[in-house]
Amino acid sequence: MNPASLALPELTEAVFALGFVLLLLAPLALAGLALTNTGLGRSRSAAQALLGSLIVAAVAAIVFFVVGAAFTGSAGGASHIFHLAGKPWNWLGAAPWLLGGLSGAPPYGQLAFLFEFLAVAMAAMIPWGSGADRLRLAAGCAIAALLSAVFFPLLAHWVWAGGWLAQLGVNFSLGAGFLDPGGAATVHLLGGFSALVVVWTTGSRKGKFPKEGFSTAMPGHNAVYVLFGCLLALVGWLAWNAAGALLWLHAPLSALPVVVVNTLLSAAGALAATFAVTRIRFGKPDASLCANGWLAGLVASSACAAVVEPLPALFIGIIAGLLTPLLVEVLELAVSIDDPSGAISVHAVGGLWGLFAVGLFAPRPGQLLAQLVGIAALLGLILPLLYLLFWLLNRVVAFRADPDGERIGMDLHELGGGAYPEFVLHRDDSYR
Amino acid sequence: MNPASLALPELTEAVFALGFVLLLLAPLALAGLALTNTGLGRSRSAAQALLGSLIVAAVAAIVFFVVGAAFTGSAGGASHIFHLAGKPWNWLGAAPWLLGGLSGAPPYGQLAFLFEFLAVAMAAMIPWGSGADRLRLAAGCAIAALLSAVFFPLLAHWVWAGGWLAQLGVNFSLGAGFLDPGGAATVHLLGGFSALVVVWTTGSRKGKFPKEGFSTAMPGHNAVYVLFGCLLALVGWLAWNAAGALLWLHAPLSALPVVVVNTLLSAAGALAATFAVTRIRFGKPDASLCANGWLAGLVASSACAAVVEPLPALFIGIIAGLLTPLLVEVLELAVSIDDPSGAISVHAVGGLWGLFAVGLFAPRPGQLLAQLVGIAALLGLILPLLYLLFWLLNRVVAFRADPDGERIGMDLHELGGGAYPEFVLHRDDSYR
Amino acid sequence: MNPASLALPELTEAVFALGFVLLLLAPLALAGLALTNTGLGRSRSAAQALLGSLIVAAVAAIVFFVVGAAFTGSAGGASHIFHLAGKPWNWLGAAPWLLGGLSGAPPYGQLAFLFEFLAVAMAAMIPWGSGADRLRLAAGCAIAALLSAVFFPLLAHWVWAGGWLAQLGVNFSLGAGFLDPGGAATVHLLGGFSALVVVWTTGSRKGKFPKEGFSTAMPGHNAVYVLFGCLLALVGWLAWNAAGALLWLHAPLSALPVVVVNTLLSAAGALAATFAVTRIRFGKPDASLCANGWLAGLVASSACAAVVEPLPALFIGIIAGLLTPLLVEVLELAVSIDDPSGAISVHAVGGLWGLFAVGLFAPRPGQLLAQLVGIAALLGLILPLLYLLFWLLNRVVAFRADPDGERIGMDLHELGGGAYPEFVLHRDDSYR
Repeated sequence: MNPASLALPELTEAVFALGFVLLLLAPLALAGLALTNTGLGRSRSAAQALLGSLIVAAVAAIVFFVVGAAFTGSAGGASHIFHLAGKPWNWLGAAPWLLGGLSGAPPYGQLAFLFEFLAVAMAAMIPWGSGADRLRLAAGCAIAALLSAVFFPLLAHWVWAGGWLAQLGVNFSLGAGFLDPGGAATVHLLGGFSALVVVWTTGSRKGKFPKEGFSTAMPGHNAVYVLFGCLLALVGWLAWNAAGALLWLHAPLSALPVVVVNTLLSAAGALAATFAVTRIRFGKPDASLCANGWLAGLVASSACAAVVEPLPALFIGIIAGLLTPLLVEVLELAVSIDDPSGAISVHAVGGLWGLFAVGLFAPRPGQLLAQLVGIAALLGLILPLLYLLFWLLNRVVAFRADPDGERIGMDLHELGGGAYPEFVLHRDDSYR
Repeated sequence: MNPASLALPELTEAVFALGFVLLLLAPLALAGLALTNTGLGRSRSAAQALLGSLIVAAVAAIVFFVVGAAFTGSAGGASHIFHLAGKPWNWLGAAPWLLGGLSGAPPYGQLAFLFEFLAVAMAAMIPWGSGADRLRLAAGCAIAALLSAVFFPLLAHWVWAGGWLAQLGVNFSLGAGFLDPGGAATVHLLGGFSALVVVWTTGSRKGKFPKEGFSTAMPGHNAVYVLFGCLLALVGWLAWNAAGALLWLHAPLSALPVVVVNTLLSAAGALAATFAVTRIRFGKPDASLCANGWLAGLVASSACAAVVEPLPALFIGIIAGLLTPLLVEVLELAVSIDDPSGAISVHAVGGLWGLFAVGLFAPRPGQLLAQLVGIAALLGLILPLLYLLFWLLNRVVAFRADPDGERIGMDLHELGGGAYPEFVLHRDDSYR
Repeated sequence: MNPASLALPELTEAVFALGFVLLLLAPLALAGLALTNTGLGRSRSAAQALLGSLIVAAVAAIVFFVVGAAFTGSAGGASHIFHLAGKPWNWLGAAPWLLGGLSGAPPYGQLAFLFEFLAVAMAAMIPWGSGADRLRLAAGCAIAALLSAVFFPLLAHWVWAGGWLAQLGVNFSLGAGFLDPGGAATVHLLGGFSALVVVWTTGSRKGKFPKEGFSTAMPGHNAVYVLFGCLLALVGWLAWNAAGALLWLHAPLSALPVVVVNTLLSAAGALAATFAVTRIRFGKPDASLCANGWLAGLVASSACAAVVEPLPALFIGIIAGLLTPLLVEVLELAVSIDDPSGAISVHAVGGLWGLFAVGLFAPRPGQLLAQLVGIAALLGLILPLLYLLFWLLNRVVAFRADPDGERIGMDLHELGGGAYPEFVLHRDDSYR
């Protein structure tokens, strides 16, 4: 498939209509992820978890509308460029505020902004899931605002809107530039890194890592939500990756069915791999880890589905599915990271692997280097900046609920009522 | 954006295909609303609530097919017209029975009937939600049949099929005529008014308003259903409003992304406003009210998303989100209205506000008056007629379950079994 | 509507885009069915039921990619043909392995493979639902692999890819050949027959048919999942049937709205009929049977929605809705079949009725005979072969969990943890 060229191909009515409707299907990925994350948390925080996903997405959308979209800019549009070592470095967009002139914008630009609305909402949901059961709603909103105003616009401009990562090919002959048509970097690495920083900053749930002995298993409270969310997420993801191929790679219509097959095979391969590996490792497959594996396959597909063939896509999924349970275990047991939704393994590691795999399997010379430059920029620039700004933010809006609030559950503490007022729940003694 | 003109623009294959597929996405709004309403009711009525949503939608669809579609008619098609004060008053459609000739109908007409199938099903679900925990299934079906045979065809003809409200512009120079591209009047005001009449006619749940003291809080039994339903509803609504813009305003493709952005911003703004106002008012944000606020933002967007710019859309959503918790409280505490799903505040008030806002923000002179005429027709003609016919219907098919049935729960009473037979539920003493 | 002719009509960009996006909506039918089936099982097996749906679909997709797609082939593509009685019998496809050349394939072929991915995943989910609460995950995977490698490719080739059933019209003047645009045979009869064989082979749940007295009612553990799944399934089904009409009948765009109306009316009619008949039979409508009726209406529509008019579609749905509760009762009480999801009645009987109805209502002479030949081939060839191969498979991968595993529930037994660890569940004494 062809990478984005600078001259946009003509966008016919049919392709515009297709891109538009794919972007209306894609939010099912958000709905699915929100449900999965809610199921992976505790029953006493379920309403807060899901309301949080809604409000976090709402804040991200509003802030993106007000300031983020202007900084994101669009390919071929106005942008901030500095020159260094004889090369232009296009680092920030300069579009009109408040999406001014959207209805008169060129078709690609209109659809690009729609895509970015969804992308920033999903990026904001990811750290929210990792902070389950102790992150305050106000902190979730503040994090979403920061991601939507600063981090996502930077990354989206670099990768999708003609920024320096997109132009690594033109300026430094590195393949087709950094390729990330489905948002593995802009959405999932950003979200996954944010999740990591949130967990660092917020700390683990009380009782998760007792002073003595092993860490406490805190299984998700509803496996049906977890797994059904995965199914819905697949539906959204199929459309999401197809839309990405259309918008950022200008893939022809005839290339899209392969994108869908690749996405499906990546998820299927990942699930099968996690299923097998957890069965071998623990004697029985683990439902939560399988859900995480499935999602990691989808995340990896966001990088690669539009640029590889079906067999590599299946392979990439399988590797993602092998990495996920391993990473979850390492993070929990070796590094004492308490990530209820597994977002770090799913989104950060799945995304890193997918972006790297694009370099491995892409036919173009220099592509692997382009991918590594992009990954290095995320690790070297974005991650430290996230740490710094979240650390500052935590001084202003305390991330963590007070211990008493955590003990009674975030629902009662933050919303004044539980999610399941008529159901009898087991008394939970992990906090006493 | 341009309002509907009488000469239909050419409908290309791509636009027809887009309209078609948008209408297949739109039922997610019905699925989401049904789930939200179920979650807002009691656990002992959950199966009846959701089965009711299904059967009510089924009855609405069948009755619309058999008689409603003929009375609805289509723009430019045969209709009943009388003359008064020198003006034509087009008040009822006269299409073939049983959708005769649908496959040979002009493309706009085909899609219009699909839209109306969804619209009438949603209108019928709204009062069903307000009657939760006491309204009988047979009554729900009868109400759905009445709405589908009489009320919806009248309104849909007036607003969408070249009826007198649509022609207020042509005949009385009132802007572009009454504008309601997403069904704020035909679906949500109709449904919301029906909900009001159902609650009047049926009375409040036993124990809701004790003879002494305050009203009893009866929180929804599953906040996850409530909030996840909101997310799904958003997905459906984005498509729904885009389809409305396409079908009833003949908006060009390039106008549709703004419609989607507006819908999203209206919901996001409404959620943020309800979140903030309930936090200020009660100390903590309220999950159910936030869900209601989100939905009210969507309802308001049904009127305005296709006719305003993004910034007004955000503002309209914020106002809807401020009004909703206020109205819920006023209705419950001041007027002793027991509306478990909050349908009156969400659909009636959200719809009224959205229709009014179209007049405020539309650039065309006379538009505000056109909107006020439409609102007046709904308040002055439809609401009294609803009251009269529902009152009569209640004589034939008693709306309310007998007290014993209500006490044991509608599931056991009407279906012979509960929705959650394996879960231990709290004993509910509100009825003893 | 026109049946498939051998010369493919030109596929415009708009129609390709539409077919593509319909196929991305269709998986909602899988998500809905998986949720419904989970709700119809026991709480102690809910995670295994839903994880099983995911893994079974994943295995089906991978195996279809690796071998199934090659055997399925495509209309006009290479295939295995033998000659008998002077006629060609096209019985197996011969496409490249691993979907080789998919991105260069003609547009119809690309979409056809996407359709088949979804179809085989759904076919594999159906017997999984019937084995609820005792079928092992490994057995589910093995069954899915067998269906995807052998049975589905055979049937799909016969019906959709120019095989002998499709050519009954050309070779034997039987109408337009065997018509099954939505997969009533290839998906639902195959799945329903597999469900029957699985239940035969696996046996009924312990305690279901006590040695003395009547069979034990084992109601589904969550009616909300059951009924909400039905709503989601409808959304997917509307797109699925439209895609089938487009791909297998080459229906023009203007014929698609009728397909959607027919699907909706068939489901609505079936629900209304089951509602009425269970109310008459048992005094109260039954929620689970109503869900089954609704789904049977959808299954019947898969055969007929693209080839009949709306009034017959409504009638066909009503008959499906009358048959379903009858069949469920007969199978359970007279034949002692324990089918928790009702898949045999829904998919096998609904599919048989729909295929037969196509013959009844189609205007073309010989069509009824063509349908009967197809049904006979399924009953005479596929069903015995299924029985044989599943019987053999059961020797290799034992279908049934050991009695102890069944007693503690499939979640604990196969996954090591329950789906609802924080909820208090009723002690179930049906096994003691």
